[in-house]
Amino acid sequence: MMAESAAGSKRIVQDGITQEEIIHGGDLDAARAAFPGAPEPWVDLSTGINPWPYPLPPIPADAWARLPGRAAETALREAAAACYSVPSPDRVAAAGGSQALIQILPRLRRPGMVAVLGPTYAEHAAGWAKAGHRVTEVESLERCDADVVVVVNPNNPDGRIVPPETLLALAERQAARDGWLVVDEAFAEVTPECSVTSEAGRPGLVILRSFGKFFGLAGVRLGFLLGEPALVQDLRAAVGPWAVSGPALAVATAALSDSTWIAATRRRLTEAAARFDARLAAAGLRVAGGTSLFRLIDDTQAAGLYNALGRTGVLVRRFDYRRHWLRLGLPADQPTEDRVMVACETFNNR
Amino acid sequence: MMAESAAGSKRIVQDGITQEEIIHGGDLDAARAAFPGAPEPWVDLSTGINPWPYPLPPIPADAWARLPGRAAETALREAAAACYSVPSPDRVAAAGGSQALIQILPRLRRPGMVAVLGPTYAEHAAGWAKAGHRVTEVESLERCDADVVVVVNPNNPDGRIVPPETLLALAERQAARDGWLVVDEAFAEVTPECSVTSEAGRPGLVILRSFGKFFGLAGVRLGFLLGEPALVQDLRAAVGPWAVSGPALAVATAALSDSTWIAATRRRLTEAAARFDARLAAAGLRVAGGTSLFRLIDDTQAAGLYNALGRTGVLVRRFDYRRHWLRLGLPADQPTEDRVMVACETFNNR
Repeated sequence: MMAESAAGSKRIVQDGITQEEIIHGGDLDAARAAFPGAPEPWVDLSTGINPWPYPLPPIPADAWARLPGRAAETALREAAAACYSVPSPDRVAAAGGSQALIQILPRLRRPGMVAVLGPTYAEHAAGWAKAGHRVTEVESLERCDADVVVVVNPNNPDGRIVPPETLLALAERQAARDGWLVVDEAFAEVTPECSVTSEAGRPGLVILRSFGKFFGLAGVRLGFLLGEPALVQDLRAAVGPWAVSGPALAVATAALSDSTWIAATRRRLTEAAARFDARLAAAGLRVAGGTSLFRLIDDTQAAGLYNALGRTGVLVRRFDYRRHWLRLGLPADQPTEDRVMVACETFNNR
Repeated sequence: MMAESAAGSKRIVQDGITQEEIIHGGDLDAARAAFPGAPEPWVDLSTGINPWPYPLPPIPADAWARLPGRAAETALREAAAACYSVPSPDRVAAAGGSQALIQILPRLRRPGMVAVLGPTYAEHAAGWAKAGHRVTEVESLERCDADVVVVVNPNNPDGRIVPPETLLALAERQAARDGWLVVDEAFAEVTPECSVTSEAGRPGLVILRSFGKFFGLAGVRLGFLLGEPALVQDLRAAVGPWAVSGPALAVATAALSDSTWIAATRRRLTEAAARFDARLAAAGLRVAGGTSLFRLIDDTQAAGLYNALGRTGVLVRRFDYRRHWLRLGLPADQPTEDRVMVACETFNNR
């Protein structure tokens, strides 16, 4: 999908990109097919989804039966604004997953030049290319000259963080050329100090947030766009009415308002990631980055380790563009962690 | 939003169409504001949603927590194909509501002439216009000359049915000019004999189905596009991965496969609609059409009756373009029906 250019950046080939070409985490069906002898149940560490979900509140029957009402959507946008410290809910739009936003956003401006700070989540480049933009992957924001700049912050999969002040300066530069800075904060719940959501509404600044990752409820399908009210209105018109399901509205409004759970979960994830790092290091594996929702291993034997884990029924995420990287989500419990570590240690002691 | 032309058809004005201009059913919040003295709880008869929902099956925790897997989506498409007698699941695409499909479909072909058989559900014209097509509302399919023809069948709100043989002949004509016939079968579950889903895959034929209306689970957000495999692929790429939530996949795969419940519910709705018609007639109201999911009253005093019902906490659907029409969904139980009828009778006996 990418072709190296002389400058070291990567040009996304526009034609021929199809959904199928992007390999996603979480596909246990494909893993079962690839490792038919692996023991069940599989352990899925291939995504960066919190393994300890927000406990589901009671969901009223009407949330399933009726069309989601305007008041329920307003309540969700208010809860999101409060949770993310966005100055006002008119700077918040909700859609059925941040992936849906990645699909729609590129169609809300006329085709132009797009620079994606990479390597990163592949759907950004694919989405912009599909909408007719000319997409370049760049390795730094230094001399980046494009109508739209896309930064995943913290980055997936390496956890690289661009400081908020750099982002805000860049947003101002982008606004001056009538452009956008798109900041995908899908994993920013665990690094609130690096988030720019409190600045949502600034000209040129477009922020995406994901509900399902931090709250451990990826099946719910909910994401937010935070930005200038006019763009928020455009986006709401593009997704149309009733874009978020009734159960999603009920669950997420409760979850986003639960500051006690949010704070406790941040601590729990930080501690769990540190413990997991220590065990990975003890097994001779180098953790090169990540967030407290996922860890990135850099190892020349990554391909072999991927297969060794797969044969024991543990799915992790590998990357076509960095063969020595493996991304691991947090194990949900001690037996799961032990199972992962046994596979790692066995592989290392061959 | 519409302007009469000399020919008697209506031209949808493209500029200035916004989501807000379309008044939808189901908005009890707006009704409460309009009739502040009305008794609670409100009765909502403003939509055509089955008041007896499919009983929710157990939803596994993973459906909430994990990204929806490929196998679950395939199972849903297979269940939909079987339920709708579609020859193969590669002719089925799922999205987060048929409204989402109405938003996306117009972007999957280059702007051209679109004829919508009207009056009908206003989002069709709005969706095509927003994507840059030139939209005309036509009153008959006779001399209809357009790249895309849109027919809601049975029609909302009057229940008018275009026979399948007329639709299939029209689809063939549309295919010959490289055009589409879009048949929105949102309410077709109750008139299966008029459905063309068994012909899905024919060139030029595009069918939309809604999950939430017949199954009484509109909050779930699920709709299907049935058509040629190439269009199905285009649509799936446009909505992107994980467009349908995990709970929706679990609930709908069970519901669409439950042929016993489906048959019993068709009978129940038919009987309930006939009973309701008899009571409306006894109250001196003329039922001019509808389906067994909603009834259409034609009455010169419709505006007054709308307000009389509103003051007693009963919301029904009125139409800006036909002031003498009121659409009523089925009351869920006897006390609800009695409450509706008391308001109707009181109004008529003033």
